[in-house]
Amino acid sequence: MVLLQTKVGLLERLDKSVVIGDGGFVFALEKRGYVKAGPWTPEAAVEHPEAVRQLHREFLRSGSDVMQAFTFYASDDKLINRGNLAGKNLTGADINAAACSLALEVAKEKNALVAGGISQTPSYLTGRPKAEVQDVFRKQVDVFVKNELDFLICEYFEHVEEMEMAIEVCKKTGLPVVATMCIGPEGDMHGVSTGDCAVRMVKAGADVVGINCHFDPFVPLAYHTPDAGKQGFIDLPEFPFALEPRVCTRWDIQRYAREAYEMGVRYIGGCCGFEPYHVRAIAEELSAERGGVLPDASQKHDAWGEGLRMHTKPWVRARASRHYWESLRPSTGRPFSCAFSRPDNWGVTAGNEELKQQKEATSTEEIKKLQNLKK
Amino acid sequence: MVLLQTKVGLLERLDKSVVIGDGGFVFALEKRGYVKAGPWTPEAAVEHPEAVRQLHREFLRSGSDVMQAFTFYASDDKLINRGNLAGKNLTGADINAAACSLALEVAKEKNALVAGGISQTPSYLTGRPKAEVQDVFRKQVDVFVKNELDFLICEYFEHVEEMEMAIEVCKKTGLPVVATMCIGPEGDMHGVSTGDCAVRMVKAGADVVGINCHFDPFVPLAYHTPDAGKQGFIDLPEFPFALEPRVCTRWDIQRYAREAYEMGVRYIGGCCGFEPYHVRAIAEELSAERGGVLPDASQKHDAWGEGLRMHTKPWVRARASRHYWESLRPSTGRPFSCAFSRPDNWGVTAGNEELKQQKEATSTEEIKKLQNLKK
Amino acid sequence: MVLLQTKVGLLERLDKSVVIGDGGFVFALEKRGYVKAGPWTPEAAVEHPEAVRQLHREFLRSGSDVMQAFTFYASDDKLINRGNLAGKNLTGADINAAACSLALEVAKEKNALVAGGISQTPSYLTGRPKAEVQDVFRKQVDVFVKNELDFLICEYFEHVEEMEMAIEVCKKTGLPVVATMCIGPEGDMHGVSTGDCAVRMVKAGADVVGINCHFDPFVPLAYHTPDAGKQGFIDLPEFPFALEPRVCTRWDIQRYAREAYEMGVRYIGGCCGFEPYHVRAIAEELSAERGGVLPDASQKHDAWGEGLRMHTKPWVRARASRHYWESLRPSTGRPFSCAFSRPDNWGVTAGNEELKQQKEATSTEEIKKLQNLKK
Amino acid sequence: MVLLQTKVGLLERLDKSVVIGDGGFVFALEKRGYVKAGPWTPEAAVEHPEAVRQLHREFLRSGSDVMQAFTFYASDDKLINRGNLAGKNLTGADINAAACSLALEVAKEKNALVAGGISQTPSYLTGRPKAEVQDVFRKQVDVFVKNELDFLICEYFEHVEEMEMAIEVCKKTGLPVVATMCIGPEGDMHGVSTGDCAVRMVKAGADVVGINCHFDPFVPLAYHTPDAGKQGFIDLPEFPFALEPRVCTRWDIQRYAREAYEMGVRYIGGCCGFEPYHVRAIAEELSAERGGVLPDASQKHDAWGEGLRMHTKPWVRARASRHYWESLRPSTGRPFSCAFSRPDNWGVTAGNEELKQQKEATSTEEIKKLQNLKK
Repeated sequence: MVLLQTKVGLLERLDKSVVIGDGGFVFALEKRGYVKAGPWTPEAAVEHPEAVRQLHREFLRSGSDVMQAFTFYASDDKLINRGNLAGKNLTGADINAAACSLALEVAKEKNALVAGGISQTPSYLTGRPKAEVQDVFRKQVDVFVKNELDFLICEYFEHVEEMEMAIEVCKKTGLPVVATMCIGPEGDMHGVSTGDCAVRMVKAGADVVGINCHFDPFVPLAYHTPDAGKQGFIDLPEFPFALEPRVCTRWDIQRYAREAYEMGVRYIGGCCGFEPYHVRAIAEELSAERGGVLPDASQKHDAWGEGLRMHTKPWVRARASRHYWESLRPSTGRPFSCAFSRPDNWGVTAGNEELKQQKEATSTEEIKKLQNLKK
Repeated sequence: MVLLQTKVGLLERLDKSVVIGDGGFVFALEKRGYVKAGPWTPEAAVEHPEAVRQLHREFLRSGSDVMQAFTFYASDDKLINRGNLAGKNLTGADINAAACSLALEVAKEKNALVAGGISQTPSYLTGRPKAEVQDVFRKQVDVFVKNELDFLICEYFEHVEEMEMAIEVCKKTGLPVVATMCIGPEGDMHGVSTGDCAVRMVKAGADVVGINCHFDPFVPLAYHTPDAGKQGFIDLPEFPFALEPRVCTRWDIQRYAREAYEMGVRYIGGCCGFEPYHVRAIAEELSAERGGVLPDASQKHDAWGEGLRMHTKPWVRARASRHYWESLRPSTGRPFSCAFSRPDNWGVTAGNEELKQQKEATSTEEIKKLQNLKK
Repeated sequence: MVLLQTKVGLLERLDKSVVIGDGGFVFALEKRGYVKAGPWTPEAAVEHPEAVRQLHREFLRSGSDVMQAFTFYASDDKLINRGNLAGKNLTGADINAAACSLALEVAKEKNALVAGGISQTPSYLTGRPKAEVQDVFRKQVDVFVKNELDFLICEYFEHVEEMEMAIEVCKKTGLPVVATMCIGPEGDMHGVSTGDCAVRMVKAGADVVGINCHFDPFVPLAYHTPDAGKQGFIDLPEFPFALEPRVCTRWDIQRYAREAYEMGVRYIGGCCGFEPYHVRAIAEELSAERGGVLPDASQKHDAWGEGLRMHTKPWVRARASRHYWESLRPSTGRPFSCAFSRPDNWGVTAGNEELKQQKEATSTEEIKKLQNLKK
Repeated sequence: MVLLQTKVGLLERLDKSVVIGDGGFVFALEKRGYVKAGPWTPEAAVEHPEAVRQLHREFLRSGSDVMQAFTFYASDDKLINRGNLAGKNLTGADINAAACSLALEVAKEKNALVAGGISQTPSYLTGRPKAEVQDVFRKQVDVFVKNELDFLICEYFEHVEEMEMAIEVCKKTGLPVVATMCIGPEGDMHGVSTGDCAVRMVKAGADVVGINCHFDPFVPLAYHTPDAGKQGFIDLPEFPFALEPRVCTRWDIQRYAREAYEMGVRYIGGCCGFEPYHVRAIAEELSAERGGVLPDASQKHDAWGEGLRMHTKPWVRARASRHYWESLRPSTGRPFSCAFSRPDNWGVTAGNEELKQQKEATSTEEIKKLQNLKK
């Protein structure tokens, strides 16, 4: 006789407590050698399943309640854009299926939820008609439904118009739909205010709305970006290969988790730059609110630096206190660096020539043209 | 009939070309949730082999020629120091054996060398006699010999006197011995100059001598530490939980690799904070010197940001050039942070009361006493 | 026979071109040893006329069209506030009369206009009735009329209500009235918006309205204060004795003058921290707009660093260009300093107990009480 | 009957206590509009005696025991160098005579000493023979002797060889000779160590030896320059028109005075950037050591910000304490600025073609050539 453990769904969990999401797969796997910065596509789910599986497990152990299948940018139009080779041997469906398997496999270890996500598309940016854009979404969602994932996430959208198209497609599945845009206080790329975006997402059918990526932790990104422009950290000159000095500490993230919780946010996770230790910081900060539960990874981390009591050097032991870490403002070790950068503010958005989807690789000549535009 | 591939040894490889080491296991695994900051011991080799295996593989794919078994601080005296629970169910020998297996297993995938390492001990710091200190080393080395590792590393020593004891033990095995100290321009903790340390290590029998850890990349650490004191980054107030703004970019590491190579260094790797992408940066920078070989992970990384040619945003595509990344000085996004910190400079070293080994956990009272000492 | 040169009045000058004001007397004279930070009163006009005369002359030579008599805070209630000794032997009328003489004397050297100014009063802050506050103003204005000054300035007001009282008094003289408040984008201390303040000043009778002090050059102050709170630089922890790193360069001021001119501002000067070379920078930047006139002090200053062509060191001569100085972002030489500070934000304003006028000096006990409030 | 007040000489004063020098005339007068940056010559002594007199008086009131005649670079070869017009109508002798009169006149007000100074010459840099260089010095010194100044200062020399020539000339007058070089820890421009320079100056006959200018206050300059190269602040890209963020606060200078005193320095003053309030800070810091004497300017400055007790705003009154100002690290208000700059390090010195004296102005073509050299 088999005992079936019933999984409590997303909406029920949110009613009762806080749900903790995971962190930033593409950035973490880029640093580990499995994702290429530029196309940012998730073919690693097929090519190196062990690496994706391990990252899932690290997030799970750090407190994530949701295993989000690694499907970011796994749409067929993205896999072939601008010389990307990922679409040559693999379809979006291949990758999405592999990603579902990995997420489901790891989720089982702790009864976590599994989500499938879709994001903005080259098709929309290029001005393709709604039906065509939704077709791109539908092909992805079909795989998620077939794999019996628990809910759907529409994330990383810069235009609420495209977001509505995505929600519409997801809504038809009957699954709960989470919708998060990568926008900041200035609203979406077409000038729709942040508040109006939220309203439109709800009207379109989203069960949970929020934001992800592009801005700093006080919006959910693991980089300090007070100087970012409308498009967030992508506009900063340091994106994506020199963001190191902006990486949040675990204490930054504890403060973020606390502030988000106090604002009433109940689904809290991270985006680009969020590593497992950042997720653990959320779980530790909100432990009391979650019934005193601590994640497995906290076996290797005592709250507020208490583990330093075991350090050899006495002056490091002296740092074993909440007060110490809470009041420290970390120096940068970079006397030739400034606090702020001037973001690129090209103001280019959906419909613009430069954003048109292209299958062929960008030529050196085109790069030069762009660099001159920059000056 | 079986063809046996003969592995070329360390010294032969160094004669012909550059050998690339790996990065910082304890720091990487702390962020992934498997090592506790404070004791910094490697029980994960037994407890979570999949995590250690995956990190080995990432370094291998990023260009490391050496898989160093994850044996840092796996001595019995360290496993029980100041309330550390790791020594309760596990011996140093257990951990070292498990670590050897994992390193050997992954190394086979690309015919890499496998090394076993020993480091400074609480026994020495506490003033135990030489015979006792060497006994600690011998127990570790015995495991490495039994597992037929390729060579031995004595690393992370702050006192040349203890280093000599370690080399002496290793030398008896007949294996090549690499010796690296975690000291900076001011020399070891007892005032022996850096140059004299090198001479003494060679005289004691080391085949390769160098430095590791405590100072910044222009010494091999993945954090910017121009403001560190004699004991390096451990003295900085940000150690170990707020070092993020100091993390080196891949471009910093390319410069480090180039400068090290030009100085004649031929075994180049990294220590705390070095992630797989940092090792890849070494391998990419020195590709020509290594016969044009690129690591597997470079399949997901085009030199000097060229992968950005595939980015959607045109102003990010405009960053696809060596000139751009080489001349960028990354801003910090932290207007309330300074460039420099004042390091702790307690001047406490081997023989001092505060450094005595203790099995019991540090009490809150003792922490307060230390904090007052600090003021 | 005597030829009388007719002086063109303020409003006529503004109709035709830009009028350049002067800089910050109290801060400049504090650094020269003649004004005490804290009370900031102008008894130097009586005590050390040669120092005041010389500063007038420096501003005149640097391009100021207006000699503003050094009458800042020369009201009787201010001269005796909180242990200030200035009111012991001198009345406001004494100081104002002496200040008028000095300004008139120097103005004659280049036919400059002479203005008398009044500022906010302890009487208002303490909650005295309107008639009493206006009486304080009237005593000052009487001296200006008697000395036949060319126009009146109501400046350095934080409350538009008090400003209206001041304008009302000035308006009765028939002289042109300039009214400037030391407020920023958040408006006055009682929450009246900046725009509404402007409208109310005009309605009260001001001929020219504007802002002075408290915020940075892109509001007219010679310190960088992007991090100031509602009360401007006074709230910054560096005020008034550690503002040095924030001092504007001459190039900052040229940019400020240009931006102000392009916004339509036609009376451009500076406040605290503005030295003669800052005024010269305005005059040089707007030279073309002023018929090609350059100030006398430009005999010792070639535009955009061209004087460096005469420097001995060749690499300094290489800096003799507009491009060089315009694009330089000066470093601070202060690796232990941050970019930003957290301003005090006590939110204390007119009517609050702590602001009550007191004749006796503040006791050490009271200072301690305040310091505790701060924590 | 006339009572002659006998002036106590420099050496006697040094035997008994500390002698306080003055500050930086050329930089202060440049900001006031009387000196041209580039040639830096002192024709203002003739052209605008009132401005020079006033600055002398400010230093006197701030605590200077020495009025140094404003003779910096008043040698005939400097007055005609590279298009400088100062030498057209004026000789060095004219300027030096005028400067002596002004210094003597103000010194009488408080019985201060009067010194005449000579500095390095274009003749030496250009490689002229010793006799010719000494002839330049002699013409200056003759004026000082004729005016019965109290002692001579050889200051602002970068080459000890030229310094020896200067001391030799001065020594013949029988007056006390003070010798200070503008060098840092790396020694003079020809590689003579700082210590050896001191020894050679003493052997050449100097009664007092020291340093002035080029490096930061912990060497005597009123700018923070931890990042300067061998030639000090002149090599920094901010020199001379964007040094503002580096200006020392009065608290920096108090620390400098204290540290200098504790090292045994007994003649303490400042160079470029030193304003009267900086000199006052020396006098206040060393008041106890000088018999409790405070300078006149301290009538307008209570120690350690105590004057703020009279400030209107309570949170500013809360800053009236030594602890507050001593522990404040001033922020810069400049989030786009770095802590450090890279100094120019051209390594050009006496004998180099680019340093040759030229009467004609530097052409635009030559400037371009230099700018290209820079890249």
